[in-house]
Amino acid sequence: MDHATGILLQLFAILLAAKIGNEIFRRLGQPTVVGEILGGVIAGPAVLGVYEVNAETELFAEIGVVLLLFQVGLETRLHDLMRVGGSALAVGVLGVILPFAGGYVAAELVGGDLPLAIFLAAALTATSVGITSNVLRDLGALSTRSGRIIVGAAVIDDVLAIMILSVASGVAAGSFAIGNALSLLVVAVLFIAAVLVGGTRILSRRRSLLTDPQFADTPLLPGMIIMLGLAALASVVGLAAIIGAFLAGMVVGESSERHALEAEVAPVAAFFTPFFFGFIGAQVDLAGLANVDSLVLLAAITSLAVGTKFIGAFVGALSQGRARAALIGWGMVPRGEVGIVVAGLGLSSGAIESEIYSVVVGMAIITTLIVPPLLPVLVRRAELSAEEDSDDGPSAGTEDDDGRRAETPV
Amino acid sequence: MDHATGILLQLFAILLAAKIGNEIFRRLGQPTVVGEILGGVIAGPAVLGVYEVNAETELFAEIGVVLLLFQVGLETRLHDLMRVGGSALAVGVLGVILPFAGGYVAAELVGGDLPLAIFLAAALTATSVGITSNVLRDLGALSTRSGRIIVGAAVIDDVLAIMILSVASGVAAGSFAIGNALSLLVVAVLFIAAVLVGGTRILSRRRSLLTDPQFADTPLLPGMIIMLGLAALASVVGLAAIIGAFLAGMVVGESSERHALEAEVAPVAAFFTPFFFGFIGAQVDLAGLANVDSLVLLAAITSLAVGTKFIGAFVGALSQGRARAALIGWGMVPRGEVGIVVAGLGLSSGAIESEIYSVVVGMAIITTLIVPPLLPVLVRRAELSAEEDSDDGPSAGTEDDDGRRAETPV
Repeated sequence: MDHATGILLQLFAILLAAKIGNEIFRRLGQPTVVGEILGGVIAGPAVLGVYEVNAETELFAEIGVVLLLFQVGLETRLHDLMRVGGSALAVGVLGVILPFAGGYVAAELVGGDLPLAIFLAAALTATSVGITSNVLRDLGALSTRSGRIIVGAAVIDDVLAIMILSVASGVAAGSFAIGNALSLLVVAVLFIAAVLVGGTRILSRRRSLLTDPQFADTPLLPGMIIMLGLAALASVVGLAAIIGAFLAGMVVGESSERHALEAEVAPVAAFFTPFFFGFIGAQVDLAGLANVDSLVLLAAITSLAVGTKFIGAFVGALSQGRARAALIGWGMVPRGEVGIVVAGLGLSSGAIESEIYSVVVGMAIITTLIVPPLLPVLVRRAELSAEEDSDDGPSAGTEDDDGRRAETPV
Repeated sequence: MDHATGILLQLFAILLAAKIGNEIFRRLGQPTVVGEILGGVIAGPAVLGVYEVNAETELFAEIGVVLLLFQVGLETRLHDLMRVGGSALAVGVLGVILPFAGGYVAAELVGGDLPLAIFLAAALTATSVGITSNVLRDLGALSTRSGRIIVGAAVIDDVLAIMILSVASGVAAGSFAIGNALSLLVVAVLFIAAVLVGGTRILSRRRSLLTDPQFADTPLLPGMIIMLGLAALASVVGLAAIIGAFLAGMVVGESSERHALEAEVAPVAAFFTPFFFGFIGAQVDLAGLANVDSLVLLAAITSLAVGTKFIGAFVGALSQGRARAALIGWGMVPRGEVGIVVAGLGLSSGAIESEIYSVVVGMAIITTLIVPPLLPVLVRRAELSAEEDSDDGPSAGTEDDDGRRAETPV
């Protein structure tokens, strides 16, 4: 069997496994995203081994999460995000500081060296906006005030996490320079501001930019070109590709073509996103966790990850009331692919050993699996308290134009 | 810049280049597929070099042509194909024998050894159904009698080409066995028959198979799972993945979900197919053709490829009248990715040198570029003569349910 045949088989296997997991969890009334990740665990190296982690399957996963964030961006309005900017900043910053401090102190306590401490701290830091926003979309809660704060905070979170990672890599390579981290921050902020201000201005002046090209019967392909371009550009300036895709979605979403584009992106995203969720699951390493020491360490690190992130984000969001702060704190908990990527960088730089790597990956997946089941309850509570205490206007509820999804089972 | 960033940039570059090519050719009233291929030439290694031929870009190209053939299968009815079975067989077989004999004799005349003769002959043999069927789809002519004969003949063509390739590889490796080629033929025929008979029977008994799964709000994902599964399976039994995708489209197309699926597959295919056309263009090697000898050889081999394929297919289709035979003969001319794949195998097995490789790739691309501009004229002439001489019932014209595309510019 040649290489291309093997890849086709793997794509088939992971799509089938993720969707069987989805089907079972849907019938049980559980969050389907958890079913898709567990489908990836079963098909992946940990159990059946019919699906591998390689460059091609990773590309499909990457395009999957890029499309997911593009969709989230399409449904996120710039002025809505601006209105929650202060809260999002507080949630993002506190939700980074506490996990980082917790990871650092814990590593020092057990006698780890500086590179280990910094990588562990960095892996505890970054939220995976993909998981939470997918569940919030299914609940129709992405356009609530809490949903917007979570999305905004996750973007800030990602920028900070990338700074921390640059520091961590510098320390591991023995060439740490605070100037590098700061210049990354400046570039990131400039990039985000330039895309949002410039992009929306261009599209509001030339609304026809998406419909003028004759090659496009619909705005889909111009939209996809902008999405891939900004994802690649974000990646070039040192940010995550998904940040670029999210910004692309927001920019295009300000145009009059938003609804046509949403309808056409939906099938493309539906095809790709299972590859992302399945890929996360496929990274579970059961063999690396098959001893008591590792399991104890996993429990400790996972508790630390959940506790510090929840408390940090909760405190940052307290101005929104306790019910919303609880939803926001819990929504920031999933580490998903971000924690796995950081752990992988730590492993390849020699800062962390393969045992710690398996533990960190396990933590990232557990934090991802435990969040979705509780979100529907927290969304209901937060929106209930929002109704009693409403000063947000209609967009605070789920009854705006994204409310059509409110009936969809998660 | 890391590897993942590079791939994102390349996908962006090729999508943009293909669509700029499409735009220019559409405005000039020329076939857009030619524009997309030339966009790939410009972005690829021959000119700008911002796009590379590597495992990931090849995967996107492969999924692109898989989706294209899945769409063609969706629009092809089994009973329609059966009705043209005899003609398709004649076109397919004669359209293989003549180019093969021509290539073989030509290689012997210039003193080439046996492996070279067989690989050159094999590269001249196989039609790329992707190119022609894409143009026929845009013209709304896929469901005409000629369109069906071309599609049927191209499938037969592919089966024969794979047999020839197995012989060629055996000769190059010094382990030729006629038994291997025959067993491949038996497996291929059994696979095609089993999928078509079994698949349509299962879906006609259990029509709900595509809509029962709760994970699917629409038939898209069940359809995609069947498509990837049969593409992978075809590849495992030694056929081309696109044959499996075509059969999957035909099987699913027999169900009542056909139209819902067509509407949802369209955006996914629109996103992927430019990667296929761009990839073909990116394989042009201008440096390898930059001398008079190579250009003369290219002109000779291209003439041979066009002449033998056209005459073979024309003679095979003569029972359909001259106008249709001309359309069918011309429609079978593009070698596209198939010729490139065969040449690549010959290069890696040592049977052909890199200069001949560049020439064969050039031939494959030229045969692909010259066909689309003439097709609209030939379709009109063939359908005009079909009206004068109509014994096919309504489905012989373009006025059936695919006729809605008849107005689309090519």
